[in-house]
Amino acid sequence: MSNKAVSKKKDLNVGIVGYGFMGRTHSNAYLQAPRFFDVAYRPVLKSAETDWRALVARKDIDLIDIASPNDTHAEIAIAAAKAGKMVLCEKPLGRTAEEAKAMVDAVEKANVPNMVWYNYRRVPAVVLLKKLLDEDRFGRIFHYRSQFLQDWTISQDLPQGGEGLWRLDSAVAGSGVTGDLLAHNIDMALWLNGPITEISAMTETFVKQRKHNLTGKVEPVKIDDASAFLCRFQNGSLALFEATRHARGHKALFTLEINGERASAAWDLHDLHRLNYFDHCDEGQLRGWKSVHITDGDHPYMKNWWVPGLQIGYEHTFIHQIADFLVALDGNRTAAPTFRDGLATDYVTDAVLKSAKTKKWEAVPAA
Amino acid sequence: MSNKAVSKKKDLNVGIVGYGFMGRTHSNAYLQAPRFFDVAYRPVLKSAETDWRALVARKDIDLIDIASPNDTHAEIAIAAAKAGKMVLCEKPLGRTAEEAKAMVDAVEKANVPNMVWYNYRRVPAVVLLKKLLDEDRFGRIFHYRSQFLQDWTISQDLPQGGEGLWRLDSAVAGSGVTGDLLAHNIDMALWLNGPITEISAMTETFVKQRKHNLTGKVEPVKIDDASAFLCRFQNGSLALFEATRHARGHKALFTLEINGERASAAWDLHDLHRLNYFDHCDEGQLRGWKSVHITDGDHPYMKNWWVPGLQIGYEHTFIHQIADFLVALDGNRTAAPTFRDGLATDYVTDAVLKSAKTKKWEAVPAA
Amino acid sequence: MSNKAVSKKKDLNVGIVGYGFMGRTHSNAYLQAPRFFDVAYRPVLKSAETDWRALVARKDIDLIDIASPNDTHAEIAIAAAKAGKMVLCEKPLGRTAEEAKAMVDAVEKANVPNMVWYNYRRVPAVVLLKKLLDEDRFGRIFHYRSQFLQDWTISQDLPQGGEGLWRLDSAVAGSGVTGDLLAHNIDMALWLNGPITEISAMTETFVKQRKHNLTGKVEPVKIDDASAFLCRFQNGSLALFEATRHARGHKALFTLEINGERASAAWDLHDLHRLNYFDHCDEGQLRGWKSVHITDGDHPYMKNWWVPGLQIGYEHTFIHQIADFLVALDGNRTAAPTFRDGLATDYVTDAVLKSAKTKKWEAVPAA
Amino acid sequence: MSNKAVSKKKDLNVGIVGYGFMGRTHSNAYLQAPRFFDVAYRPVLKSAETDWRALVARKDIDLIDIASPNDTHAEIAIAAAKAGKMVLCEKPLGRTAEEAKAMVDAVEKANVPNMVWYNYRRVPAVVLLKKLLDEDRFGRIFHYRSQFLQDWTISQDLPQGGEGLWRLDSAVAGSGVTGDLLAHNIDMALWLNGPITEISAMTETFVKQRKHNLTGKVEPVKIDDASAFLCRFQNGSLALFEATRHARGHKALFTLEINGERASAAWDLHDLHRLNYFDHCDEGQLRGWKSVHITDGDHPYMKNWWVPGLQIGYEHTFIHQIADFLVALDGNRTAAPTFRDGLATDYVTDAVLKSAKTKKWEAVPAA
Repeated sequence: MSNKAVSKKKDLNVGIVGYGFMGRTHSNAYLQAPRFFDVAYRPVLKSAETDWRALVARKDIDLIDIASPNDTHAEIAIAAAKAGKMVLCEKPLGRTAEEAKAMVDAVEKANVPNMVWYNYRRVPAVVLLKKLLDEDRFGRIFHYRSQFLQDWTISQDLPQGGEGLWRLDSAVAGSGVTGDLLAHNIDMALWLNGPITEISAMTETFVKQRKHNLTGKVEPVKIDDASAFLCRFQNGSLALFEATRHARGHKALFTLEINGERASAAWDLHDLHRLNYFDHCDEGQLRGWKSVHITDGDHPYMKNWWVPGLQIGYEHTFIHQIADFLVALDGNRTAAPTFRDGLATDYVTDAVLKSAKTKKWEAVPAA
Repeated sequence: MSNKAVSKKKDLNVGIVGYGFMGRTHSNAYLQAPRFFDVAYRPVLKSAETDWRALVARKDIDLIDIASPNDTHAEIAIAAAKAGKMVLCEKPLGRTAEEAKAMVDAVEKANVPNMVWYNYRRVPAVVLLKKLLDEDRFGRIFHYRSQFLQDWTISQDLPQGGEGLWRLDSAVAGSGVTGDLLAHNIDMALWLNGPITEISAMTETFVKQRKHNLTGKVEPVKIDDASAFLCRFQNGSLALFEATRHARGHKALFTLEINGERASAAWDLHDLHRLNYFDHCDEGQLRGWKSVHITDGDHPYMKNWWVPGLQIGYEHTFIHQIADFLVALDGNRTAAPTFRDGLATDYVTDAVLKSAKTKKWEAVPAA
Repeated sequence: MSNKAVSKKKDLNVGIVGYGFMGRTHSNAYLQAPRFFDVAYRPVLKSAETDWRALVARKDIDLIDIASPNDTHAEIAIAAAKAGKMVLCEKPLGRTAEEAKAMVDAVEKANVPNMVWYNYRRVPAVVLLKKLLDEDRFGRIFHYRSQFLQDWTISQDLPQGGEGLWRLDSAVAGSGVTGDLLAHNIDMALWLNGPITEISAMTETFVKQRKHNLTGKVEPVKIDDASAFLCRFQNGSLALFEATRHARGHKALFTLEINGERASAAWDLHDLHRLNYFDHCDEGQLRGWKSVHITDGDHPYMKNWWVPGLQIGYEHTFIHQIADFLVALDGNRTAAPTFRDGLATDYVTDAVLKSAKTKKWEAVPAA
Repeated sequence: MSNKAVSKKKDLNVGIVGYGFMGRTHSNAYLQAPRFFDVAYRPVLKSAETDWRALVARKDIDLIDIASPNDTHAEIAIAAAKAGKMVLCEKPLGRTAEEAKAMVDAVEKANVPNMVWYNYRRVPAVVLLKKLLDEDRFGRIFHYRSQFLQDWTISQDLPQGGEGLWRLDSAVAGSGVTGDLLAHNIDMALWLNGPITEISAMTETFVKQRKHNLTGKVEPVKIDDASAFLCRFQNGSLALFEATRHARGHKALFTLEINGERASAAWDLHDLHRLNYFDHCDEGQLRGWKSVHITDGDHPYMKNWWVPGLQIGYEHTFIHQIADFLVALDGNRTAAPTFRDGLATDYVTDAVLKSAKTKKWEAVPAA
């Protein structure tokens, strides 16, 4: 809330589709971004319609933000693009790469600003890691590992489908943890470590049938409860990825580790304000893993928040992302990840699901 | 942002005095509280006057929030109370217990709601600890320890006085780390572990003189850079407290540990979303310190935020405090810590500073 | 060194083949075991011959302990068994399952006590974990993960072959990290989580050629620098395994994690005296990962060492293993892992190396 | 067990007085030291007499090692010195500084090698810290903190006195945690941070009476269950020390932290193989606490043990200390801490106990 922050801003009229958990995080981001970041726009949340078509049809809406379940993404995004709206979309972009490809085509044809809410790219510790990689501090990369471990669906009594539980309904979600969780791991990995070339995967559905909330009947569960894959990156590094909702004791343990010739780094979402860093260039007897508390003014985004030592949390990643979007918008630049970046991730998740079925290594197409 | 949260709320007109770091945290709290908590009031930030007298004189202000340097607290609070305003005040309440006593008298005479911003009482992990203590899970308490370690004033080139640096100017701040940092440790300790009866303290000023920003001259430094004390609590437990701005490597390491007959717990601000807990009632071979990630819906305040595993940060403590204040206000109840609670802490900090001078054990008066 | 420990013991004459790192750990174990454990035998280290044939031929040797490079294991073990000696062998049992099978046949035909030095089974924290699993505290197992990360061969200037470096010479070692490191992960996993049924693996040799110490010439490197695989266990759980010598920042980071329906546990070699345990049966608001310091008298093996809080180290795992062997010997029982257990691990490592070549899922035969 | 280690060594005949816990650690050290370190002497444990006078009288004993309860230290040490024996003594040297002074006088008059078993000085991580301090990497020291937390005497049913429990009997032990635990903290602090000049202390006996094992009667407990003090070092730094046997959840948590102008370090006994180090000279954005795994060949003592990543434990500190003693002996040098160093610690513990009674700051005499 610097003086700059209270300077005159242009209104950006936003229509959010979807009022679940994601709608809440987005709403908060729109309100907080101009209060903490020096952006030229002030997002104005216009009344959110239950009927997205009405929203897309409104003249006074500049930006459609899709925070509704996965099966609605493509249709809404394509309509919004056709209507000339900027389009932001929750991840994963599509339930399949095919859906995602149509969405990319629509926004690129309409030439409208677009972005996918892979919010974890905006964790300050992760942004710092990206910077260190870009500065070539790691040298040749040998290994990458990433997990997303949860435990909320272990109970067999948990139903599938309906509000709050659509993530267990394959018709709505597309897939289980592959699209819901692994997509985050993959997006971040592609950003940090470049393209993935080939994959060998396995998936599992531990709970084979659950009561469906919409039909009231016990029905087969078609989503994957767990998904893991080996892969190779274009840069020659080897990687393991794993996501599950059956890892007892973990709520949202999104981890990553990268090992290079000269340095290694690790991060996890349960303590998102820390970056663990090993620098082989350190003096031999004092080499070790450093836990960097990412709260200083010289850390990404942090000069806009509090003072050194005072941590931020989950919701800030969304604020950072929309702030970056608004800054890019003002400069006629693109804020990543774009829909095309989202498509790249969908190509990988498609390959994961395919490999799990074929039990073969599958190549990943370029986005 | 539940439906309740968007229900009709009464306006509460707030005038904040002070636009520094603390002003920012308070402003944010007023805006966020009604968006995430079911409170009956919506704080409205009226234009913040540089002239606090004008603010106090305004008829349309319900609540004066004092976020200005310590030397202004008493005068403003007393005037605001006389004007019948609710009064919230940054910590420490007064520069001395004498100042604080006059402030308590004023708000109690005027019978206006009042509260001191010891925000760390509202860290969910700390609130959970309080609950566990209240349930008598610890049994007899033997030990309490608390630190507040920083390192930002080690450089001798850092000047004293003026904007952002008034904490080094004893005329403005009253004391150094004793009032600035130890006050937090003490407030929390009194809340969790009851009254302190006697104290033996030492203080130190490592940097003896600094350039003064207001006079431009090198002047003696009169604040304490470090302060530590031994004490005994009324419940028979022994304690050590320490605060310093010369602990290299620590930005805002506020720690506490409490050891009881049946359980122990520890917490620190650098990972504020975790509570460390040892339960002696656990099976022998599996006893150990548990790191509880305080992000579940059954943890204090957390059902109002995101989903399990997703952490909150520093600013949320202020949001929780004002939310509690608003709820209490609606129910004609008191939200702690009141000015009288703030006075209790000032009695302790006074005893610390006195003991450091007399080199004797000093008794602590009851507030 | 209880009174029992100094009681009369029978001599057990031991001949160790190999004087490298492993020879040192074994020698120490033979000397320490009867001093700290109540065993009926006192191992006597007879002079260790460079000529193992002479050692096997000696009448006064009861037990041949093979601590020499992998390419010598089979020949020595088979000769020793034929000579009626007890045979202990460093891991991996054979360079291939074929070699290992011949060794199993030899010791079983000769009916001589035999054991493979998978020493990490005797880490007290791991033994406790095994006990918890046997008591069915975890319920159905969903996931298993295990890594062995090192970084000592990253430098391209490191030669291959010869003393201390035979692990890089495929003719001697058989394989790289698959047999050297993953074998540890697999042995422990088979013990804790049961048989593995099928595998999809990848391996990589990052440094393609190195100077060979024996020939003096730069030669292709034929061992794997890194090896990873997905697999399924017979109990329905999914697993990821990974070993590498190119993970900068890790010296000997052997990790494991197991996730069950009601509990999870994790352990790593860098802090081998700790077991991390999550118990879902804990009260909801206080669930968390507990770090159990495995140093109490009621922890496996620990009553024979010091007092609570005082940790043991790496070498103790060997002492525990030989103590168990001696106790079993006195009772005419078998101490695991036997050669047959070692063969089971070799079947898995063979499948790993095969899958990495075929790029297919490979089944694992039963041992 | 290098070739050097098996080279010809001179016998050093050792008589140990005391067969409790400490006798076991010493015995092990004498046996292991010449097997892992290149020392000129091989300690030979002569039969340990229950009658220490007979032991001292034996001509074939070179060194008397006192591992018996505190009340026996002075008498035995003085007699041994008079008999011209080298004398090693468990800590604390005397029950009081007065006793210790007489012991110092005796060994200095007899001019016999002497050493006190403050074994924790030989933890590799602590030795590395000492080296870093000696290289002046920390700059001016501002703070020192040290704790020794245990929880084994909380139960009121625990008796006092007799075998294994003499530490609770003030006649035998001299004091409670002050001499038993704080003495370790103090010895290390004096070594790392120089002399302490003045002290303000408090002590407490939480359990006022316990059954006495020798008399069978419930008797007042005269030892201190907890002891804490503030102090100032000669180098201008401030410190807090605390020891207790009533800190639920801690078995032997000996911690230390030192904060200097340019660096800070921390260590604790529960993970004794790690040194935590913060270097302010690190690049700003990557400053953090590094956890150095002290297992590399370039770490103190570690090249004599295993390979990088493999940790050692508690008992090794004794092996290191006797190895250093033997090396010093061969070179006609002194191995610290000598009896005079032990006296310095006793001056501090005396001042602690005195200050706790007088409730005043007490000066510490120089040893």
